[in-house]
Amino acid sequence: MSEDTNAKAMSIIVTKGTLDWAYPPFILATTAAAMGLEVTMFFTFYGLSLLKKDLNLKVSTLGNTAMEMPMGGMHMAMPNIMAALPGAPALTTAMMKNLIKKKGVASIEELRELAIEADVNMIACQMTMDLFEYKKEDMIEGPVLGGAATWVDVATKSDINLYI
Amino acid sequence: MSEDTNAKAMSIIVTKGTLDWAYPPFILATTAAAMGLEVTMFFTFYGLSLLKKDLNLKVSTLGNTAMEMPMGGMHMAMPNIMAALPGAPALTTAMMKNLIKKKGVASIEELRELAIEADVNMIACQMTMDLFEYKKEDMIEGPVLGGAATWVDVATKSDINLYI
Amino acid sequence: MSEDTNAKAMSIIVTKGTLDWAYPPFILATTAAAMGLEVTMFFTFYGLSLLKKDLNLKVSTLGNTAMEMPMGGMHMAMPNIMAALPGAPALTTAMMKNLIKKKGVASIEELRELAIEADVNMIACQMTMDLFEYKKEDMIEGPVLGGAATWVDVATKSDINLYI
Repeated sequence: MSEDTNAKAMSIIVTKGTLDWAYPPFILATTAAAMGLEVTMFFTFYGLSLLKKDLNLKVSTLGNTAMEMPMGGMHMAMPNIMAALPGAPALTTAMMKNLIKKKGVASIEELRELAIEADVNMIACQMTMDLFEYKKEDMIEGPVLGGAATWVDVATKSDINLYI
Repeated sequence: MSEDTNAKAMSIIVTKGTLDWAYPPFILATTAAAMGLEVTMFFTFYGLSLLKKDLNLKVSTLGNTAMEMPMGGMHMAMPNIMAALPGAPALTTAMMKNLIKKKGVASIEELRELAIEADVNMIACQMTMDLFEYKKEDMIEGPVLGGAATWVDVATKSDINLYI
Repeated sequence: MSEDTNAKAMSIIVTKGTLDWAYPPFILATTAAAMGLEVTMFFTFYGLSLLKKDLNLKVSTLGNTAMEMPMGGMHMAMPNIMAALPGAPALTTAMMKNLIKKKGVASIEELRELAIEADVNMIACQMTMDLFEYKKEDMIEGPVLGGAATWVDVATKSDINLYI
């Protein structure tokens, strides 16, 4: 885009693990990497689940009154009482996955693969690994283990730092 | 406030579209613009709905155990089972709108107008427009269309970058 | 960690007040302060409740499909319909508090005390105080009152700025 982006660095703290909020960090990381930025992602809290080998991401409309699905030219928001019923997250997840596929948007698995190929640095939060009892063999190869201090060290050398 | 703020730039990624989370980006953007900063807002995901001509913002207490409404000197948090009932988001929304009005806080429509008058740059995310099937004629005039690369380009030239 | 971190400054906008989301700002603030950074926390919206003398933080799984509790080697996600029932947030809160204690993670009260001892600057949002009718005597000693302009002023002098 611009020569100004040369030699810039960006760090992203990834804290969410739902299907919808998994997109922003991977889209921003892969875009910035493609533009020549050095990118580091620090996966912590619920975001750490995005490094699992088997991704099983879901999404719920609960509490998010702004989530509207396009339905044949209209937009539908699901009432909370329906959204709380068993099966509702599965339905919402299926609707969003269909929508994403229909629109030709990459899956999280594909974006994650793209990030690895683009040499995005990935750090898995050691404290979260311990807290939620995630096993190293359940996670993809590549990410290094680190803590908040690892991120602070990266952030002090980065031009852009986001908490997602 | 300070001469240090001269010629500084700020970008905000706006991803939420509920009544409560609509406030932080517009308050920060208008305040920074009033202090002389060059401000760019990138509206994406559920935040894109904040650029609709007709705003119909709602809020729910669901899952947000920290939301307490002041009620005659006390604070009330709504139990999740009540918050899931039909009408509960409407009630919570009405309570918060009343609270905001009673306290003399500007509406989102007013803050958005203020941001436009203060020359805040607004970018509407093209991918989200396509994904959620938003039509250009449903959106306010002014914002330009762009993508993640547009934001990265802005961010590399900004001193402050927030993801909200 | 690194000599690069000398004389750097970080600001954090703290907007969430649930038990889980109370951790990231305090962990990052205390870690950065320990590494020699000048840290300022701006408590606003639901995050302002983290400055109350009596913390009564809760957490709900509602709408967060990525929250899984480790249960005897397995991971359990609570269905939304169960999560909406009376007592469910209390159960989830108790489970997470037990988990945190079992793993030797500090409580929010301890981390807040640590932040104060590490000279982290704390600003309580005046507008939120007024809006939610929080009384000054309900809050801990130390934080100063300020507004969005106070934060913008701090942010323009900081190297790292996060919105949590």
